[in-house]
Amino acid sequence: MAIPSDLEIANSATVLPLPQIAELAGIPRQHLELYGHGAAKVQLEAIESLAGRPDAKYVVVSAITPTPLGEGKTTTTVGLGQAFSHIGKSATIAIRQPSMGPTFGIKGGAAGGGYSQVVPMDLFNLHLTGDMHAVTAAHNLCAAVLDAHLFHGNDLGIDIHNITWRRVVDINDRALRNITVGLGGRLDGIPRESGFDITAASEVMAALALATSLQDLRNKMGAIVVGYTKDDKPVTAEDLEVAGSMTVMLREAIKPNLMQTLEGTPALVHTGPFGNIATGNSSIVADQIGIKTGDFLLTEAGFGADMGAERFFNIKCRYSGLVPDAAVLVATVRGLKAHSGKHRIVAGRPLPAALLKENPDEVHAGGDNLRKQLENMKIHGVTPVVAINEFPGDNTGDLQAIEQIAAEYGARSARCTHFSNGGAGAAEL
Amino acid sequence: MAIPSDLEIANSATVLPLPQIAELAGIPRQHLELYGHGAAKVQLEAIESLAGRPDAKYVVVSAITPTPLGEGKTTTTVGLGQAFSHIGKSATIAIRQPSMGPTFGIKGGAAGGGYSQVVPMDLFNLHLTGDMHAVTAAHNLCAAVLDAHLFHGNDLGIDIHNITWRRVVDINDRALRNITVGLGGRLDGIPRESGFDITAASEVMAALALATSLQDLRNKMGAIVVGYTKDDKPVTAEDLEVAGSMTVMLREAIKPNLMQTLEGTPALVHTGPFGNIATGNSSIVADQIGIKTGDFLLTEAGFGADMGAERFFNIKCRYSGLVPDAAVLVATVRGLKAHSGKHRIVAGRPLPAALLKENPDEVHAGGDNLRKQLENMKIHGVTPVVAINEFPGDNTGDLQAIEQIAAEYGARSARCTHFSNGGAGAAEL
Amino acid sequence: MAIPSDLEIANSATVLPLPQIAELAGIPRQHLELYGHGAAKVQLEAIESLAGRPDAKYVVVSAITPTPLGEGKTTTTVGLGQAFSHIGKSATIAIRQPSMGPTFGIKGGAAGGGYSQVVPMDLFNLHLTGDMHAVTAAHNLCAAVLDAHLFHGNDLGIDIHNITWRRVVDINDRALRNITVGLGGRLDGIPRESGFDITAASEVMAALALATSLQDLRNKMGAIVVGYTKDDKPVTAEDLEVAGSMTVMLREAIKPNLMQTLEGTPALVHTGPFGNIATGNSSIVADQIGIKTGDFLLTEAGFGADMGAERFFNIKCRYSGLVPDAAVLVATVRGLKAHSGKHRIVAGRPLPAALLKENPDEVHAGGDNLRKQLENMKIHGVTPVVAINEFPGDNTGDLQAIEQIAAEYGARSARCTHFSNGGAGAAEL
Amino acid sequence: MAIPSDLEIANSATVLPLPQIAELAGIPRQHLELYGHGAAKVQLEAIESLAGRPDAKYVVVSAITPTPLGEGKTTTTVGLGQAFSHIGKSATIAIRQPSMGPTFGIKGGAAGGGYSQVVPMDLFNLHLTGDMHAVTAAHNLCAAVLDAHLFHGNDLGIDIHNITWRRVVDINDRALRNITVGLGGRLDGIPRESGFDITAASEVMAALALATSLQDLRNKMGAIVVGYTKDDKPVTAEDLEVAGSMTVMLREAIKPNLMQTLEGTPALVHTGPFGNIATGNSSIVADQIGIKTGDFLLTEAGFGADMGAERFFNIKCRYSGLVPDAAVLVATVRGLKAHSGKHRIVAGRPLPAALLKENPDEVHAGGDNLRKQLENMKIHGVTPVVAINEFPGDNTGDLQAIEQIAAEYGARSARCTHFSNGGAGAAEL
Repeated sequence: MAIPSDLEIANSATVLPLPQIAELAGIPRQHLELYGHGAAKVQLEAIESLAGRPDAKYVVVSAITPTPLGEGKTTTTVGLGQAFSHIGKSATIAIRQPSMGPTFGIKGGAAGGGYSQVVPMDLFNLHLTGDMHAVTAAHNLCAAVLDAHLFHGNDLGIDIHNITWRRVVDINDRALRNITVGLGGRLDGIPRESGFDITAASEVMAALALATSLQDLRNKMGAIVVGYTKDDKPVTAEDLEVAGSMTVMLREAIKPNLMQTLEGTPALVHTGPFGNIATGNSSIVADQIGIKTGDFLLTEAGFGADMGAERFFNIKCRYSGLVPDAAVLVATVRGLKAHSGKHRIVAGRPLPAALLKENPDEVHAGGDNLRKQLENMKIHGVTPVVAINEFPGDNTGDLQAIEQIAAEYGARSARCTHFSNGGAGAAEL
Repeated sequence: MAIPSDLEIANSATVLPLPQIAELAGIPRQHLELYGHGAAKVQLEAIESLAGRPDAKYVVVSAITPTPLGEGKTTTTVGLGQAFSHIGKSATIAIRQPSMGPTFGIKGGAAGGGYSQVVPMDLFNLHLTGDMHAVTAAHNLCAAVLDAHLFHGNDLGIDIHNITWRRVVDINDRALRNITVGLGGRLDGIPRESGFDITAASEVMAALALATSLQDLRNKMGAIVVGYTKDDKPVTAEDLEVAGSMTVMLREAIKPNLMQTLEGTPALVHTGPFGNIATGNSSIVADQIGIKTGDFLLTEAGFGADMGAERFFNIKCRYSGLVPDAAVLVATVRGLKAHSGKHRIVAGRPLPAALLKENPDEVHAGGDNLRKQLENMKIHGVTPVVAINEFPGDNTGDLQAIEQIAAEYGARSARCTHFSNGGAGAAEL
Repeated sequence: MAIPSDLEIANSATVLPLPQIAELAGIPRQHLELYGHGAAKVQLEAIESLAGRPDAKYVVVSAITPTPLGEGKTTTTVGLGQAFSHIGKSATIAIRQPSMGPTFGIKGGAAGGGYSQVVPMDLFNLHLTGDMHAVTAAHNLCAAVLDAHLFHGNDLGIDIHNITWRRVVDINDRALRNITVGLGGRLDGIPRESGFDITAASEVMAALALATSLQDLRNKMGAIVVGYTKDDKPVTAEDLEVAGSMTVMLREAIKPNLMQTLEGTPALVHTGPFGNIATGNSSIVADQIGIKTGDFLLTEAGFGADMGAERFFNIKCRYSGLVPDAAVLVATVRGLKAHSGKHRIVAGRPLPAALLKENPDEVHAGGDNLRKQLENMKIHGVTPVVAINEFPGDNTGDLQAIEQIAAEYGARSARCTHFSNGGAGAAEL
Repeated sequence: MAIPSDLEIANSATVLPLPQIAELAGIPRQHLELYGHGAAKVQLEAIESLAGRPDAKYVVVSAITPTPLGEGKTTTTVGLGQAFSHIGKSATIAIRQPSMGPTFGIKGGAAGGGYSQVVPMDLFNLHLTGDMHAVTAAHNLCAAVLDAHLFHGNDLGIDIHNITWRRVVDINDRALRNITVGLGGRLDGIPRESGFDITAASEVMAALALATSLQDLRNKMGAIVVGYTKDDKPVTAEDLEVAGSMTVMLREAIKPNLMQTLEGTPALVHTGPFGNIATGNSSIVADQIGIKTGDFLLTEAGFGADMGAERFFNIKCRYSGLVPDAAVLVATVRGLKAHSGKHRIVAGRPLPAALLKENPDEVHAGGDNLRKQLENMKIHGVTPVVAINEFPGDNTGDLQAIEQIAAEYGARSARCTHFSNGGAGAAEL
């Protein structure tokens, strides 16, 4: 029987009331702020309230270097989270909120896939509770204040050729990448070259993900460097006297969002820094809450173990003080074959037929990427488990090739079919 | 005793649970979606559910032409709403959501003032439930699709010199008013001149305010003209195949937000088109719900009776089918004195001493503005009531001058002290 | 027999050695600087050397308001100049150098036409002796110094939104009309909006045309206002310390160029300010030399008697001190018919057939333009002579209509066939 | 006795009539077109007329890599040219026309220096006969036609992101380096990013320098690539149908300019491509004329032997067919010391005192530059002569160091004092 589409599965899901999910996770009702029927914000006071509870095992989920095919990192995180209830354990997952930008492009959605999704899918993919918008607004408020400062005489002596703070928009809008602002007339500002980045690349987003409290966020906002004077001295948001307002605009956004998976696993969805150009990890405060909510906390690190996971170990954990207990590395047959360099894959096009044939040599060739990621993980002192995200139609020989690579590094591996089978499919792991 | 500041009053307010406010207004619990503790969205299905209830008296509140002093239109609407409970009647108010742009500038807040405010004040003034952001995102999605269309070969033959669709941002950012987009290189779009307007001026915002259903909004999105071909044929969002996505992004934003006044009066806060450059009225769907929630529905029309109220009668009511029962015109001694042209008033500076002295002649001179507004109202078939928003320190002679002007036009007038005294102060009216 | 094309006539012309032309005009050889075989510059010292000679009759040639058809103002000036030798008198003509801009566009040439041309035609229409380029270079040097001043700290406090000095180019280049300059990086200047005008519109060109000596030109360069400070104080080229360099660059350009007509009449060709946007007259120094070179000096005033001639009387003559003895107004049957508003004429397209039919009423209708120009001339105290530039195929009734209009104002009129017949055709006048 | 300034020397020079200079060089009078009193153009027909005369020895003068100090390449070329008459030989020099851009900057002039200059100095440094302006105009005509082509529908399908043809200006105007053109409105062109280079870098300039006839120039203009279509096919000036007009604008500019040195040596001054970014050599046609005008033709190759001279051998000579007989390499004590990397030299500031002390080791250290240039020259089959341009105050030990370096490569060397002593000072060489 064919697997229904992601959308069909998501739409037919029963979404449990969020207070029920919170109760499952042990989060006191008074720290919950409902946002419609699909999500709730968890107040940071919950960290204090939950302090007495035992810590969950802290597991980071990463993957091989991304290919246009998608390796199913989020899907696996969701699947793993769901799997624990199949073995009598409780788990919470912590993932990032996706950017609307690429979502309206090719990918179509970032809520996971198949029977391992966060629901409601449309809420997850769109505004959710408005955090992305708040980050965008806070970032752009800083830019507006900066340009207004130039307009009103530039008392700080900012060098207009050395302004590093651009604007952001949560959409893939290429026409805004490089623009000239301040045109028009006497009332329209000072002309200069600038542009927009995607919100997921905003330093405000990274700071929000790394903040441990609202006060800490306030400090991080103040420390933001927006440019330099003609003497090459840095100019900060504090100098512009805008850091306080930026923080006010983020007052709600700093609270993690509670959602659920298709099987009712609690999912903390919070902040969305890109892995290739920013920290690539969901928020510290979400993990600080999640670590007290069950037997396991699965937290996702984006864009390849060498990018997201490296920052997880070296940046996020240093700030948060949390110590990971295990690491999962997601790999797929098709992803490793793509890394062999033998196929030309175009996003949105059908896979080349040659890629679908059994060919363990190709898996081994592309397996160098997996090997290097395994080495990377071991540098950080954890022995990774390889989660083989098995797709319908994957060949046994190819799957075994991945298992052999994992074994070379003394890493346990397991095939997961959570896409087709939900949590049960990842229970082996 | 001095009146505490707006902020002090707002912060010391007891905010009732929204379900309790909804119950007061007769809105069924199942149509309520809580958004944190201060606001809730009311689903449009409520219109159907409430159809059997009697209509409230429909009262539009407008004012003389705005001055930098603020005439207290929102404050009076709130005060009036609160006043009805003092005379044993139930009322709901319907007002617009303020733009963050000017809020971060001089004005400081738009939630009303003194003891006549909508609370929580900070929620009201900032993101609320994210509607502003959704309008911004939908508007800018259309712009991004338009520029992407140009980039991918411009099959529609759009004349780049005749594109009328700009982008919007919910902040007063003068450097973005006139920009050149599409600079950079081969992957960065087609260069052209464009710019950003404030979100409150977006056609998407106006359409949201005038939509009577999600389907109607979908149609309005499709009909948006973004520019013209070289043959001067209009090009629409429908032609760009973006109208559906825009509507999806507005799916939550179309639901009115329920809040409350300091005295627990239900307040529907929804959409924020500016009165000087757009329709200046809150949404039709908010009024369609509010009209079934008590004895009176007070709806505010922005930026002077000749702007906002004119559009209320000629645009909003024609779309909604609702017929106003009464009109209130807010006037102040200081506002009319400002209209006399004898004083130089700068926003944010203390009032000129001369303006505070008793001088009925000046009130009569500036009273021409009030006279014209009274005439305007009568054209639309309603006899207005003049609400004299009395400030502490106003002189009797000056107040009487306003009463005389109202009497010239056969309009009833009443002094209101709702700023100092809350609803009790507006009960006379 | 068909009249050969302008180019054929020009190319078959015998061009006399310039020293011979100068001798004819009484200009001493030592004041002549040859520039190739077709032109020579006359040193300003000639003014002093010729001081003792008698003044020529000073005749200004103007026309009805220009139409796309061309009224033959230059052609008539040349034809008249040539005509004097047919009646035993000596004449010199003084005309402007054309801009290359429109020349490379539709018009094709500005040297006159038919048998009444200045030769060599290509020299006349292209670089001539480089005066246009010198004006362009001096103008743009000032702009470069201005932008360098902004770049180096803007000690003069120039308001970048209130810079009135643009750049110029001697070509019709629409892409340069509105540009943003100073883009790039730290070494590439200060971004601002600016643009290029055509060289013929440069204030440097107007100043060169009105200068009475190199020292006077130096003063005029220094007085050029390039923009304003933020306090609205004017900033001059003198303030930028560039006026001296600009003058140096114009040292050759201030010397009038001596050329000749097809019949060997001396032609002083000097400066080219447009008549619609600048002074529209050739230089004062050319007239100061020409006034001493024969019985008549014919000087052309551009773009309609109400534009060029008005500035001739009110600006040029006041600076030069010369007093006109007579004024010629050129009119054509087709030009007046075009002014009737009954025909749609497109430059470069064949004339509408209807316009070529005899129709004196149409001439009378369009004749209002001629009437007003005649009135304008009389205001300045000279009674104009109407030169009817007769084209092959013009109808008698139409020509008589012009004569009637002239007679209404007591002006003498004469039909001229100089285009077909050279100087002999204008001898009646 | 102190040496007078360059300007004093130049102004006190006796400038001989150009026909006399031409006669000295054997150029028939009928091929001479006088341009004022200081220069004349030589018609290309002179090449044919002179064909029967014997060839001069063809000597290329180059130098070590330029430093901010100036090595006196032009000065030495002039000095050498003058020197031949001191040993009873006739010589002609061929040099480039300088750009006005840097001339109005730091350098002050490019006519040579001291008693080895081309005169009149101001004519040489400014417009000369307008060739620079003609190149600028032809180049920019092409750009204007290109933008007009885009404006009128872009039938050639030019990719606006892949246009390689910019505009040029003969001035150092940093604000024009990177600009956005085509702004404004419907009539103002298509917006795109572009900019201005200096005229000396124009491909038109390089083509003019390498053209062997007007027809050849016409072909070169047609072959100019202005950009590419979206299919990456080149688009030429021929495709734009502008190559003919460009050639017409260069009709005078292709004729070499005849001037003279302070001692009356004929100097052909023609074209000015920069050596660092273009071909760096004066024109082929000037050399083709000069090669028939005496015992020696000294032609200058700009910007270091590795730049200008390399292009002389590999590009210019291949096009012209002329074969060099000898090569002169100019070196200075101060230049080699600067190349040692031990001194910080800023253009326009006094030399560091340390650099002026005798220090042969430093000369040897910086001498690596001279060594490599000597090697470069030998690759092309000529043994260079090192001309040591001796400055007053140079120390004997330092001068001897240069002689030692030359001797290492078997190259003859000679000290020249032409700056102080004119031609006599270079006679040794």
